[in-house]
Amino acid sequence: MPSSTKERILDSTAELFRRQGYTATGMKQIAADASAPFGSVYHFFPGGKEELGAEVIRTSGRLYMQIFVEVIAENPEVLDAVEAFFSGAGETLRETDYADACPIATVALEVASTNDTLRQATADVFEEWMAGATEYFVFAGIARVPARELAFSMLSLLEGAFIFCRAMRSTEPMAAAGAAAVALVRAALESSREGEG
Amino acid sequence: MPSSTKERILDSTAELFRRQGYTATGMKQIAADASAPFGSVYHFFPGGKEELGAEVIRTSGRLYMQIFVEVIAENPEVLDAVEAFFSGAGETLRETDYADACPIATVALEVASTNDTLRQATADVFEEWMAGATEYFVFAGIARVPARELAFSMLSLLEGAFIFCRAMRSTEPMAAAGAAAVALVRAALESSREGEG
Repeated sequence: MPSSTKERILDSTAELFRRQGYTATGMKQIAADASAPFGSVYHFFPGGKEELGAEVIRTSGRLYMQIFVEVIAENPEVLDAVEAFFSGAGETLRETDYADACPIATVALEVASTNDTLRQATADVFEEWMAGATEYFVFAGIARVPARELAFSMLSLLEGAFIFCRAMRSTEPMAAAGAAAVALVRAALESSREGEG
Repeated sequence: MPSSTKERILDSTAELFRRQGYTATGMKQIAADASAPFGSVYHFFPGGKEELGAEVIRTSGRLYMQIFVEVIAENPEVLDAVEAFFSGAGETLRETDYADACPIATVALEVASTNDTLRQATADVFEEWMAGATEYFVFAGIARVPARELAFSMLSLLEGAFIFCRAMRSTEPMAAAGAAAVALVRAALESSREGEG
């Protein structure tokens, strides 16, 4: 099924944000990349680049949550799921010539001190990720406070490793981050089991 | 001692990169911010924004290495040093209204797929950081291979936490990242001591 014009605009914008960030991405480039008439971009997003940017941040946030949920569904054991999540990120980086990483991180850093509407959109997505990962770790048997800490650590490892992998054109940082995340989850599981005993 | 015009240009550019990134920062804004004549920016950096950007990445990289070295000098115990490094990053974020984080990360993500000269400059800085942190962990008694993994994990935790702290306007992500880094270093120290025994 061919995607709608609006979907193509959102997909192209997400792709351009991932590769070059928010500031470098212009409305004309978005229209050209999406094979959409220039006017249609403003038809769907009358608020212009800021409205489109906020929508892309939200849809990308949901998409990445889905990837995490799919990895969990395929890996019933929590340690396997965390390992698969990081190795999958490393494979995607290598396959896309180190272009395809987090669609939100670049924009988040660009707008944090310059555009509060978009900063809030990135903060909302990050809070949803943290809440989702926290619930998952709680479900896996980790107490709530360490589960939330673990969610922050795991996603910080992932986002930090994306920066180093893309700059250094290597998956070594992601492999190290994945091993660290697995070690942290294992320690939290053991600690929570001891707490119960 | 008043700083030279060239130093002011480098400082202003680093500050602008930290707050808004590479793409959003123009040469006119740099000159105005540095109270330097517009022509002097091109006098010192005839290669324009790319040459200036590469120089700022290198000087910022050295500056951040110095901060790490100062924290180490003040904290002879490795676990204290790692904790102080993360708590210092959190304090700086709060004191600067979540603006003052890594001067290289935003630029690194913006240029990774779009400007290979600047990408290489960020990769060189990151490799120096990893080498420096690896040597430090080896000196602290950790075997070389886990020491390098630990360097990647610690700096990924830091860079990832910067993204979340700035977006969410909270130091909670940095506190979680710091606790995780300390736990990883402690486990590596214990594991290396067992390996010796």
